[in-house]
Amino acid sequence: MIPPAIILVAPQMGENIGAAARVMANFGLLDLRLVNPRDGWPSEAAATMSAGALPGVVAVSVFGTVEAALHDCGLVFATTARPRGMEKPVVGTPGALERMRVTPGRTAILFGAERTGLENEAVTMADAILSYPVNPDFSSLNLAQAVAAFAHGWAEAMHERALPPAPSVDEPATREELVGMLEHFEAELDRAGFFFPDIKRSVMTLNLRNAFTRAGWTAQEVRTFRGAIKALATGRGKARVIRDEK
Amino acid sequence: MIPPAIILVAPQMGENIGAAARVMANFGLLDLRLVNPRDGWPSEAAATMSAGALPGVVAVSVFGTVEAALHDCGLVFATTARPRGMEKPVVGTPGALERMRVTPGRTAILFGAERTGLENEAVTMADAILSYPVNPDFSSLNLAQAVAAFAHGWAEAMHERALPPAPSVDEPATREELVGMLEHFEAELDRAGFFFPDIKRSVMTLNLRNAFTRAGWTAQEVRTFRGAIKALATGRGKARVIRDEK
Repeated sequence: MIPPAIILVAPQMGENIGAAARVMANFGLLDLRLVNPRDGWPSEAAATMSAGALPGVVAVSVFGTVEAALHDCGLVFATTARPRGMEKPVVGTPGALERMRVTPGRTAILFGAERTGLENEAVTMADAILSYPVNPDFSSLNLAQAVAAFAHGWAEAMHERALPPAPSVDEPATREELVGMLEHFEAELDRAGFFFPDIKRSVMTLNLRNAFTRAGWTAQEVRTFRGAIKALATGRGKARVIRDEK
Repeated sequence: MIPPAIILVAPQMGENIGAAARVMANFGLLDLRLVNPRDGWPSEAAATMSAGALPGVVAVSVFGTVEAALHDCGLVFATTARPRGMEKPVVGTPGALERMRVTPGRTAILFGAERTGLENEAVTMADAILSYPVNPDFSSLNLAQAVAAFAHGWAEAMHERALPPAPSVDEPATREELVGMLEHFEAELDRAGFFFPDIKRSVMTLNLRNAFTRAGWTAQEVRTFRGAIKALATGRGKARVIRDEK
């Protein structure tokens, strides 16, 4: 099983990034991805707090969007304590680890910014929500502690079993393939005048993305659906139509 | 089950005590005991890092010896990464939690000082050693992260026994609504010439139905997607097209 990528979305304090990197290194998670770190990168505060994990032990990559950070990931969890009104499965760490165990390919855990957490747009990109059983009267975790909680759980799960082979399933679509499919879908919907009035665009897009990211598409299913979009948009064979190009 | 006491033996940095208290409060561990904190007690640095857990949420008591701190505890674990040459059982967090679950009375986890860890005298007082499955190449945990790892594991174990029903916000689509959506989709795909050659029809249909039925669509999402199919098939407004009717 490939260790999951840890993705910090819009982290603010370099100290927290460094502390997160340190505990990742402690538990063997070596793929740290940053989406728009507030104070830029590299960070001296992060290096100091990492106790030697940065630079060198943990590999850091920086991205401009959540989608880009997830490009090669098939199964994605968003950590959030707040109810979202989204129809995503909610799992604890054991549930997330179990799903990761039976899923081939690369996986990722999204963590939001200090105080504000993950934006809805980022949560929408996830297959499921990873939620910790926090004290309702004192629920705000430090960012690096939140990473520590998952990292330790992951290491315990790895340690506990000499891993049985995952049941053979189809290769999951990478996040890049899934996003490509959704963008193709949305572009054709746009061309067809679906997003009208324009004010409804974002809620309609979220609505569709939520439904589609829950499904755990395989790479083959993505190809089939892209063919379906194309057929609906332009037709095939005798059914081919020429659309107005607005 | 009484939440275990967390005992920090000779902690050095007030910041680490505060961060440990914060994550204890997050996961419902409210009994913090300090043995000879280097910089005395109370600590302003600890209060600042605790994000409100100190003073008040987590109860702190200070002792002069490990024995005194353990006076009311029946089952005690010592955390240490280093082999000790002591005849003590060594357990991971799941093993420790299982023993705590079946042991009545108060329990405790001992954590040593930054850098030096627990002295042999303190380890001797424990029933067993609690060891984390750390990366052998990067094994030194921050003190508060070490507390976070256990605290989270404890909360997950407590939580597992009392799983609340998954929160369901939106009405799930009935199977009739979902099938209606799929039939609508397939009918439009058929009209657009997608199922070609005809021999591929059943595998393509299965492929799409598998992906769509996994997603747990809500009734609202079904309506949105049906609107999307309609828009792609015929367009809306200026983008409307007249299709060949075969």
